[in-house]
Amino acid sequence: MGFTPRLFLGVKPSKTLVFLPFLLTLLLVGSQGDNNAMDNVSTERLAEESHRQDSANLLIFIMLLTLTILTIWLFKHRRFRFLHETGLAMIYGVLVGVILRFGVHVPASMSDVILNCAVNASPATLLVNVSGRFYEYTLKGEVSRGKGHQVQDDEMLRKVTFDPEVFFNILLPPIIFHAGYSLKRRHFFRNIGSILAYAFIGTVISCFVIGLIMYGIVSFMKVVGQLGGDFFFTDCLLFGAIVSATDPVTVLAIFNELKVDVDLYALLFGESVLNDAVAIVLSSSIVAYQPAGDNNHSFEAMAMLKSFGVFLGIFSGSFALGVATGFMTALVTKFTKLRDFPLLETALFFLMSWSTFLLAEACGFTGVVAVLFCGITQAHYTFNNLSPDSQDRTKQLFELLNFLAENFIFSYMGLTLFSFQSHVFNPMFIIGAFFAVFLGRAANIYPLSFLLNLGRKNKIKSNFQHVMMFAGLRGAMTFALSIRDTATYARQMMFSTTLLIVFFTVWICGGGTTPMLSLMSIPVGVDSDQDNSISAVLDGTQRSTKHESAWPFRIWYNFDHNYLKPLLTHSGPPLSSTLPACCGPLARCLTSPQAYENEYRLHEDDSDFILNDSSVSSIYADVTVSTDASGSRTTSRGGRWAEGLEHKLGSAEHEVAIRGTRLVLPMDDPVEPPTTFTLPPPPSPPRSELRRHRL
Amino acid sequence: MGFTPRLFLGVKPSKTLVFLPFLLTLLLVGSQGDNNAMDNVSTERLAEESHRQDSANLLIFIMLLTLTILTIWLFKHRRFRFLHETGLAMIYGVLVGVILRFGVHVPASMSDVILNCAVNASPATLLVNVSGRFYEYTLKGEVSRGKGHQVQDDEMLRKVTFDPEVFFNILLPPIIFHAGYSLKRRHFFRNIGSILAYAFIGTVISCFVIGLIMYGIVSFMKVVGQLGGDFFFTDCLLFGAIVSATDPVTVLAIFNELKVDVDLYALLFGESVLNDAVAIVLSSSIVAYQPAGDNNHSFEAMAMLKSFGVFLGIFSGSFALGVATGFMTALVTKFTKLRDFPLLETALFFLMSWSTFLLAEACGFTGVVAVLFCGITQAHYTFNNLSPDSQDRTKQLFELLNFLAENFIFSYMGLTLFSFQSHVFNPMFIIGAFFAVFLGRAANIYPLSFLLNLGRKNKIKSNFQHVMMFAGLRGAMTFALSIRDTATYARQMMFSTTLLIVFFTVWICGGGTTPMLSLMSIPVGVDSDQDNSISAVLDGTQRSTKHESAWPFRIWYNFDHNYLKPLLTHSGPPLSSTLPACCGPLARCLTSPQAYENEYRLHEDDSDFILNDSSVSSIYADVTVSTDASGSRTTSRGGRWAEGLEHKLGSAEHEVAIRGTRLVLPMDDPVEPPTTFTLPPPPSPPRSELRRHRL
Repeated sequence: MGFTPRLFLGVKPSKTLVFLPFLLTLLLVGSQGDNNAMDNVSTERLAEESHRQDSANLLIFIMLLTLTILTIWLFKHRRFRFLHETGLAMIYGVLVGVILRFGVHVPASMSDVILNCAVNASPATLLVNVSGRFYEYTLKGEVSRGKGHQVQDDEMLRKVTFDPEVFFNILLPPIIFHAGYSLKRRHFFRNIGSILAYAFIGTVISCFVIGLIMYGIVSFMKVVGQLGGDFFFTDCLLFGAIVSATDPVTVLAIFNELKVDVDLYALLFGESVLNDAVAIVLSSSIVAYQPAGDNNHSFEAMAMLKSFGVFLGIFSGSFALGVATGFMTALVTKFTKLRDFPLLETALFFLMSWSTFLLAEACGFTGVVAVLFCGITQAHYTFNNLSPDSQDRTKQLFELLNFLAENFIFSYMGLTLFSFQSHVFNPMFIIGAFFAVFLGRAANIYPLSFLLNLGRKNKIKSNFQHVMMFAGLRGAMTFALSIRDTATYARQMMFSTTLLIVFFTVWICGGGTTPMLSLMSIPVGVDSDQDNSISAVLDGTQRSTKHESAWPFRIWYNFDHNYLKPLLTHSGPPLSSTLPACCGPLARCLTSPQAYENEYRLHEDDSDFILNDSSVSSIYADVTVSTDASGSRTTSRGGRWAEGLEHKLGSAEHEVAIRGTRLVLPMDDPVEPPTTFTLPPPPSPPRSELRRHRL
Repeated sequence: MGFTPRLFLGVKPSKTLVFLPFLLTLLLVGSQGDNNAMDNVSTERLAEESHRQDSANLLIFIMLLTLTILTIWLFKHRRFRFLHETGLAMIYGVLVGVILRFGVHVPASMSDVILNCAVNASPATLLVNVSGRFYEYTLKGEVSRGKGHQVQDDEMLRKVTFDPEVFFNILLPPIIFHAGYSLKRRHFFRNIGSILAYAFIGTVISCFVIGLIMYGIVSFMKVVGQLGGDFFFTDCLLFGAIVSATDPVTVLAIFNELKVDVDLYALLFGESVLNDAVAIVLSSSIVAYQPAGDNNHSFEAMAMLKSFGVFLGIFSGSFALGVATGFMTALVTKFTKLRDFPLLETALFFLMSWSTFLLAEACGFTGVVAVLFCGITQAHYTFNNLSPDSQDRTKQLFELLNFLAENFIFSYMGLTLFSFQSHVFNPMFIIGAFFAVFLGRAANIYPLSFLLNLGRKNKIKSNFQHVMMFAGLRGAMTFALSIRDTATYARQMMFSTTLLIVFFTVWICGGGTTPMLSLMSIPVGVDSDQDNSISAVLDGTQRSTKHESAWPFRIWYNFDHNYLKPLLTHSGPPLSSTLPACCGPLARCLTSPQAYENEYRLHEDDSDFILNDSSVSSIYADVTVSTDASGSRTTSRGGRWAEGLEHKLGSAEHEVAIRGTRLVLPMDDPVEPPTTFTLPPPPSPPRSELRRHRL
């Protein structure tokens, strides 16, 4: 449920089509009277017919996804790791694409009759006057030159083609939000410097390296006469930006299952999340400033600077907007008692997160980027204010949306290989692009790793670097960026090539992850996370989260802990103890009563840097303290569980418990929370995270 | 996240608009060359502008919903019962409508320039040839006669107007599915005969009574000269069908909170659920056969018969399709081990339920009706096969979708009062309609109740009848049906009148529920359900579910219990014991191993007729037995909990436990399941159900 086939496929609703045969009749028999009774009947029939066709088309995709889910289950059940679900979805998509292309022939229907109207302009809205009645037409787009007569032939293929904006406005936002919301913030923040370097500097390097190489190749092609149309330098840069967005979802799923080193995981995940944001803003600033000055499309310092300014403006604006909506949601959930009504709370959370996207788009920023930072903010602050029930609900809701959107994109990708009608496969360009992508990734990872290792205590080893190099898969974002505009020859060639790059990386690199890991002798099955953190807690220092990090992070951590957390959530020290004395009344009014209660129990509240996965609702025991006035019945789930644990730990370990090992739960503990005992034998990714990150 | 503003508002994506100013420029300066660099820039700007506008428009709705949620919370918090959330949503909608109508004036923008193209026909697709380039246009619809020049003026109002099909294809399906999925099946089946009578016979009676009265009024108006256009008999009947769909969501919410008699609740809820299905099929069969024979639109026996045939065909077809998809999902979830992966399971469940809608639409049936019966089937069979996690997830997902869709529709309703541009408010018609609706409802409830009481043991008392009469609110379905087509004068008048009827019933009847209950001296706070059922179980008869019901229900119950349940779920007696001996091998292959295990423990598995609310996942202890091969770790939540309970009950009560009181859980039991102890003090509706229906 949810979407309508017609909206989804960009086809007009039936009501629209109702008028068509009636009008055609008018034209054909020359009748202009009002006796339209019989016409109406056939009209209804035709409209119904078209609606049926649309529903059937969307059914194809639903069936594809259903098939994918069943096969995924089979693969997980049998523990096949050579092909990820996204790869599978692509294969099914390709199969259906082949069938649609070569197997099905839909005869041109009545509704496709085209009238050549020889006016001399094309405004967005066209009013057509037919014997006193006005009909409104809207511009759908330009039909490729000389292809006017082909429109009827590939009706079927055209019908299964989505409006590219669907990807940006419907499918990407939940994926990106989920990435932000499910970020393992502890490891993310521990490696924040490296992640930012890879994501910002690395992506820009990759973009320019690929752009320059492609410009060389394109120039060579022009000389050889292989180029069938214009291909400017900015197109090359755009291509660089598009294919610089990595999406190692396949690799990370395997990492999760095999319990590969958490720092490597954090680096890859963090890079790919921010990466997407950088690539989308980069590409839009390249597009916006493409035709600066004259018409020559060559490299220009001024345009570059301007683009850079636009890049910074859009990025920081989107960032600020996302964070602002996150803050607002946190404040609303803190100061109302919405948590008594999980349904209302979840709905509010969903709507506020969605409004970030719309607000950003309305302000001219990038909604996808705003949604990413909104997700991170929501997870960091708002999540703590939610009731345990809503915590589960929101996690599960976005997990589901992410799953559906991701598999939809990948199966659509497979379909597009055959259903897209303007493919330009140029062998020289394709080979060049693969080469450039490889070099671009290398120019991102190796030099940056070298520089970062100069400053890092915990070095990025060379086998880690190779894995990061290898894990540079291209996925949903790359596809969405490349399909956004396929109007010109250059864009079409870029799209076709990008498609092949995605296919290659997902199938070959994704499938080769397990062999790669053993080749690089990366240890698997390490619960290093657990060991590190426990020892860190036990020897009484906050080493793992504070001392390993650089000074900007420490400043941020203190600010966040002393001011933001107490303001936005129920945890942290009371504001009255951290703010200057003059702000006393304000501080008291903004601090929740729970903060005072917590104060003497928890001087260091580091838990939110430590855990963030599906088990988090049970583990945030000291954070989700009940805010209910009556206070009797809303003891939080985690709280109750933690109490039991505390008993077990005994008084000897009590000091440890206060400092953080409330959170330490051995896996086979009998006081294990009730939420986890349905853990299935072959653990799915989120479940396995649950085991690993329970420090 | 999720929907794109542009798709949602029916406005074309930005890419479409990109071409417009470029072309206008072509026209204005007469240039036909290729130097379009500067044009492209301004083009991009305009497209962006339009996209921003769309996002801002959708933001209005999101903000409306957010505001509604916060006010709902306040109302629930303060326990105001005179206004339901849907009534609130409507008020906010009206306010925004007033502001948009009288407060905001958007100057006509460039993108609205209209070209009068004097061709003599209007096909669905128009190719416009501008100096060698082809632009594709699609028909948007007819502009009201003489209103061509007004299009620019109310641009803002036009932009916040949705395509009516959005309601049928996006907003109604989740509402209807949720109604089916959350149906309290035990009480539903106990009163199935009466519910069917009210829903089918009653709706048809109401439709004809209203239709005939309205025809009288319209005829009178024609004589008096009050009628501004055609209004045929079939229009009157259509009006009758539209306003016969009741939606007592407000009333039921209050019933739930006040714990009003469950049979009354079941009658009202069951009637309104099936009611919607009947009304939608009824109205579509009236529309389809409207112009039968000649043009006179008068009453015709043949057309009526045909319409009746269509009605039966569509209804039974949709029913069969919905049930078939439900069965398929049940089989898939039974015979795969998908339950190990709740995410996959939930996704599959969602997709299969959605595909019902598409399949029905593709086959020419009514998707909404199919989805209703799919929901009932899923709840009855598939739900038992799901893992406890997925049971929660699916319930919560559809609860959220239902909440959002419902509040969206009601706030849009409020908005429409001022934003809709072709209102026809005719005082005589409106007064007549209120009178007719009242009489139609009375002609449904009182005679049918009289007839039903002849056969019922548990009579429908007269105060119950008055409440049922009073609770005939009109809601989402009525609105969606009436906004579907507002092309003619008759339809516009019907729409405006319907809007007023909805407002009146939701605000006045909805708000007056509590006084009405005390006036009618209906006892509130009764846990009659619990008392009845426990006594029924304790005195060892299945009286409440089997003996109170009529014979068709008993036949169905036996068939369901002996064949369908064992085939489609893990519960019930093994098929090998119910099927004839010759089918032995087949029966063994289709019965799950759990059925044999259960057999000696549970001879009567009646639990699914007894409970169906949010606590159901914990209560289906004997149904959701683990299907995992390893069998060691996947003990179901309910199972474990029930074991503890069993211990407590002790051996003396063991016989009782076997027959059903496994399910009897006193509210303050220390073995209470962990999922329920966060029950908040002012219970929200689903939570309160949990208390009441735990028998």
